[in-house]
Amino acid sequence: MSVIENTTRTPLIQPQRLWDDLMSSREVGALGETGMRRLALSEEDRQVRDWFVAQCRALGCSIEIDQIGNIFATYPGLDPNLAPIAMGSHLDTQPSGGRFDGILGVLAGIEVLRALHDASVRPAHPITVITWTNEEGSRFAPAMMGSGVYVGAHQWQTVAATCDKSGISVAQALDSIGYAGNREPGFMQFSAYVELHIEQGPVLEAEGIEIGVVEAVQGVCWLDIKVPGVSAHAGGRPMTMRDDALVAASKIVLAVEAVASAHLPGVGTVGFVNAAPNSRNVIPGTVTLEVDLRHPDDAELSALETELIAEIKRISPAAEVRRVWRKPPVIFDSRIVDAIADRTEALGYSARRMVSGAGHDAAHVAGIAPSAMIFIPSYNGLSHNVLEYSSPQQCAQGATVLLGAVLDLDNLLTADDRNS
Amino acid sequence: MSVIENTTRTPLIQPQRLWDDLMSSREVGALGETGMRRLALSEEDRQVRDWFVAQCRALGCSIEIDQIGNIFATYPGLDPNLAPIAMGSHLDTQPSGGRFDGILGVLAGIEVLRALHDASVRPAHPITVITWTNEEGSRFAPAMMGSGVYVGAHQWQTVAATCDKSGISVAQALDSIGYAGNREPGFMQFSAYVELHIEQGPVLEAEGIEIGVVEAVQGVCWLDIKVPGVSAHAGGRPMTMRDDALVAASKIVLAVEAVASAHLPGVGTVGFVNAAPNSRNVIPGTVTLEVDLRHPDDAELSALETELIAEIKRISPAAEVRRVWRKPPVIFDSRIVDAIADRTEALGYSARRMVSGAGHDAAHVAGIAPSAMIFIPSYNGLSHNVLEYSSPQQCAQGATVLLGAVLDLDNLLTADDRNS
Repeated sequence: MSVIENTTRTPLIQPQRLWDDLMSSREVGALGETGMRRLALSEEDRQVRDWFVAQCRALGCSIEIDQIGNIFATYPGLDPNLAPIAMGSHLDTQPSGGRFDGILGVLAGIEVLRALHDASVRPAHPITVITWTNEEGSRFAPAMMGSGVYVGAHQWQTVAATCDKSGISVAQALDSIGYAGNREPGFMQFSAYVELHIEQGPVLEAEGIEIGVVEAVQGVCWLDIKVPGVSAHAGGRPMTMRDDALVAASKIVLAVEAVASAHLPGVGTVGFVNAAPNSRNVIPGTVTLEVDLRHPDDAELSALETELIAEIKRISPAAEVRRVWRKPPVIFDSRIVDAIADRTEALGYSARRMVSGAGHDAAHVAGIAPSAMIFIPSYNGLSHNVLEYSSPQQCAQGATVLLGAVLDLDNLLTADDRNS
Repeated sequence: MSVIENTTRTPLIQPQRLWDDLMSSREVGALGETGMRRLALSEEDRQVRDWFVAQCRALGCSIEIDQIGNIFATYPGLDPNLAPIAMGSHLDTQPSGGRFDGILGVLAGIEVLRALHDASVRPAHPITVITWTNEEGSRFAPAMMGSGVYVGAHQWQTVAATCDKSGISVAQALDSIGYAGNREPGFMQFSAYVELHIEQGPVLEAEGIEIGVVEAVQGVCWLDIKVPGVSAHAGGRPMTMRDDALVAASKIVLAVEAVASAHLPGVGTVGFVNAAPNSRNVIPGTVTLEVDLRHPDDAELSALETELIAEIKRISPAAEVRRVWRKPPVIFDSRIVDAIADRTEALGYSARRMVSGAGHDAAHVAGIAPSAMIFIPSYNGLSHNVLEYSSPQQCAQGATVLLGAVLDLDNLLTADDRNS
């Protein structure tokens, strides 16, 4: 149970303070009028990390940093034997990103700590805000690198040697910005983990709903497809004697759409296409497609993949299909999900249980601690886009649910400990 | 009527000599084992031009060069008042081209002159072999540049100032290789023009036919299409809420195929595709397509274009369609076509009247003189490809028809002059 020391004040989010932080965060890596470019482990990343550490220290937090640069700011709890309840997300962005993706989850975490601090509320559990290293994966692959190393999904030694396009390794970049910590990844256990994030999709906005209670992250399957044809002069070869790789590839693009639409709520996308020789008056001889398939149900995702490959082989028997990535869905902890849903209802916000279309650090953390996520609406469903936007009110609502869920979990889990 | 001086010998093509020339021509700009790279007005172009001039001078030809570097090698006729009967093609190649495209027409022209010379046959008309400058258009746009300037389709002053990617103008390049001539383009009139070329398509080979008697060059229409969509995260946006530019573009690619197939022998090709942002897990926001439509009948070509644009607007009402080039079909002179067909029949070669899918210098020359073309089969229909191939026998058959047609036309047109 949370203890309110020497006061009857209720901890409350300050919407304007949170908004001011979101807007001033943009000054570190501003791109155009509304965009951001804050690549992982860049000088801009160093600046925003320094700011994060200073804000948290001012609230009395201890700061710990692990080898891959994940930062853990812990607001002390009344019972030092309890594993912290954690919040977090990331402060890095895409090369041409927006102001909210990831950043909101960290800044709302700080705002939660401020609300506790201002009200002099000290929970039973320590409360930790985490900024995970390199969620975006734009400079160093893969994405969700820091949380992936932390939970043991990736080997730290391998990741340390991973280089960006100019040959700088993750280890070198961490050293150069002074965030190569001494903690072993995985050093801290969490009683629970809650991540606030913008939806990065259009569902909440389209349905006019304020809070998304995220129960799962979709499974993902990536396929590379090479469609063969015979390159020839576009004027000299009759229609009846052609083997046009782009015609076959176009049928495959439509098959991806059809098969995914037959497996709703699954999604299928061809985001990348390359034709060779790619000259107007030459029939394309080879077309490469990169496909992204997702489904919240693992068996359905497998069915989607199998049916699509059958369609591809029917359209172009000689097409080469290579699976380059497969990740099963992550089902969040029902108790954490319910805690978020209950607090949202108590606050009078409209809510919807939903599945995350995108990957998040929470999907990794779910492997080592009870986890769930809170979504707020994204303007036009945009993300990884300089026009990314959520309103001050939407951000404040998300942070208020986050604060409430943390306090409720503190009570709930403390009661557990008593009963156990 | 041709006069055979002091001999009864019949002029005959020497297949091995023609083949040796074709193979040794490749040494000037050889690329890999079978390919060629001999860009217009390059050092390699100078070398092959020097060789051409030397060969023709050795046969007693006069050499004239116009301002754009077209070379006219004229074997004198008995009647200096008659306009020459001309043959020709080009010696430049694509950056990654083959040994036959264009080159065969010029080298067979030399072989025709050699056959006349060896047999001491002197026709009534002068016989001119032309090598046209920059047919390929790979270094300087547009293609068929030399013949286009010669017939007045392009302004010489404009073309002279046209630069390649390194900023060198056509005029500078001509100077640097010593082929800036002093003749005005169009200075010489032709009684007839015959161009021998490889088919650059699969029809003759597929039908097992030896000689294509080319009656026309297809009309061409080039369209640029910009297909709009809404870029979004491939995981976060449900299938039912998408505006995927690549899905719409794929339908347009299939519409090009369907509409062209409904207007046979028309052809329609999307040779170029570009998606933005072209990243696997982002729904494409814009796709650009470049379309090439062709038909031997001008009205049918217009119908093809109109129907396709209607289909595009149905598929993607906001798509932008821009016509970037339109050239009506060229119908060759029936008398020249018949002369070629008659001689082919007399030689016992199998023949087929056909339409050229590709553009050729003859399409320009047809605007100022009675013209037609002779095709021989291309291996697998390949062209603009290092694997381009026609056999020694096929090349010799084409040259033999060329020689025969020139002799027949000399008789036919001389009889005309007598009767007029």
